[in-house]
Amino acid sequence: MKRNTPDSEWSTAEKEILDATYSALLKHGYADLSITRIGEELDKSNSSIYHHYDTKTDLLNTLLEFTIDQFMLQIKTQPTNDPAEELNTLLTDLLPPDASERPQLQVVLVCFRSQAVSDEEVRAQFTQIDQRLAATIQEIIRRGISQGVFREVDASQVTEHLLAMITGVAHNSLTTDRDDAASLARASVASYIESELKQSG
Amino acid sequence: MKRNTPDSEWSTAEKEILDATYSALLKHGYADLSITRIGEELDKSNSSIYHHYDTKTDLLNTLLEFTIDQFMLQIKTQPTNDPAEELNTLLTDLLPPDASERPQLQVVLVCFRSQAVSDEEVRAQFTQIDQRLAATIQEIIRRGISQGVFREVDASQVTEHLLAMITGVAHNSLTTDRDDAASLARASVASYIESELKQSG
Repeated sequence: MKRNTPDSEWSTAEKEILDATYSALLKHGYADLSITRIGEELDKSNSSIYHHYDTKTDLLNTLLEFTIDQFMLQIKTQPTNDPAEELNTLLTDLLPPDASERPQLQVVLVCFRSQAVSDEEVRAQFTQIDQRLAATIQEIIRRGISQGVFREVDASQVTEHLLAMITGVAHNSLTTDRDDAASLARASVASYIESELKQSG
Repeated sequence: MKRNTPDSEWSTAEKEILDATYSALLKHGYADLSITRIGEELDKSNSSIYHHYDTKTDLLNTLLEFTIDQFMLQIKTQPTNDPAEELNTLLTDLLPPDASERPQLQVVLVCFRSQAVSDEEVRAQFTQIDQRLAATIQEIIRRGISQGVFREVDASQVTEHLLAMITGVAHNSLTTDRDDAASLARASVASYIESELKQSG
């Protein structure tokens, strides 16, 4: 089931089906998806979906894998001489101030996440995402500390704080109609980084 | 569908069924629940469930309503002369350092939350939860500021920060196997409150 293929190795037909799955997921939710409903989002008969995927579960797992592939590419930052700016760029991608600006792949992750409470396979995938994201953030913070840009904080504690904010803001803004939630939280993260991480002066 | 009844007005039979629904939810996840699977958790035949509930959706909605009733009671704090301690008590309830210590009702909310991306009714319920929780936290912070216990912070911004932490830590700890996540985040929230909110000296 697991596929570690770069974006270009997903065929056009596969991507069309995954795109239709995403549209159906947004309309009906994870629990109420069906191959028929995915087919309705696609300019093809259901049989063309079954040509690629055996079951709805198969198709949903593939969408999650595809999304994780993309997400891992997104958070892969190139080390620069400016760790503060790297952290800012990463957080700007992951904490858009408006739910409607949130990239599709982040929406898919929110749609799937609840399933990880009970599904071991999905849980392993979210463990992998959070581990990778934590490692990325922690590496930037440690580099910033060693360069004297950041204060000598407990890097693993600050990392966990930011990771919880990233997950929390995504869920709070996509699962409620509280329109200010994301922008207030984003501003608050910026001031947290100023006061907690940055060297004064 | 909406019921605003206190705990005591839920009958024993109803509570037994809701408890079985909770057990089945943890085993199979929201998407793969069925009346048959709920019946397996109960010492009764399925027909007794159908006597109380027409459909699986009906039963799941009732579990969510019951959970929200309980949750609203839990976060209803009595104003005291010590807002700092009130906030600490609330956060200790909502941010247990170990996922296994998390109360059942908070686990149910995590199991349901993804569904709110696409389901308007569930979304309205999570909007209501977050609004109530935000109002509770913000009232404590404002009282602390007026008493000179807390600094003159932007109360709505700090509230949104804490709300995102509460949602984020619940999801990160219940949907992954990163065992340290919750305790590190809890420690980090404590130090955030020390440095952001508390008056020095």
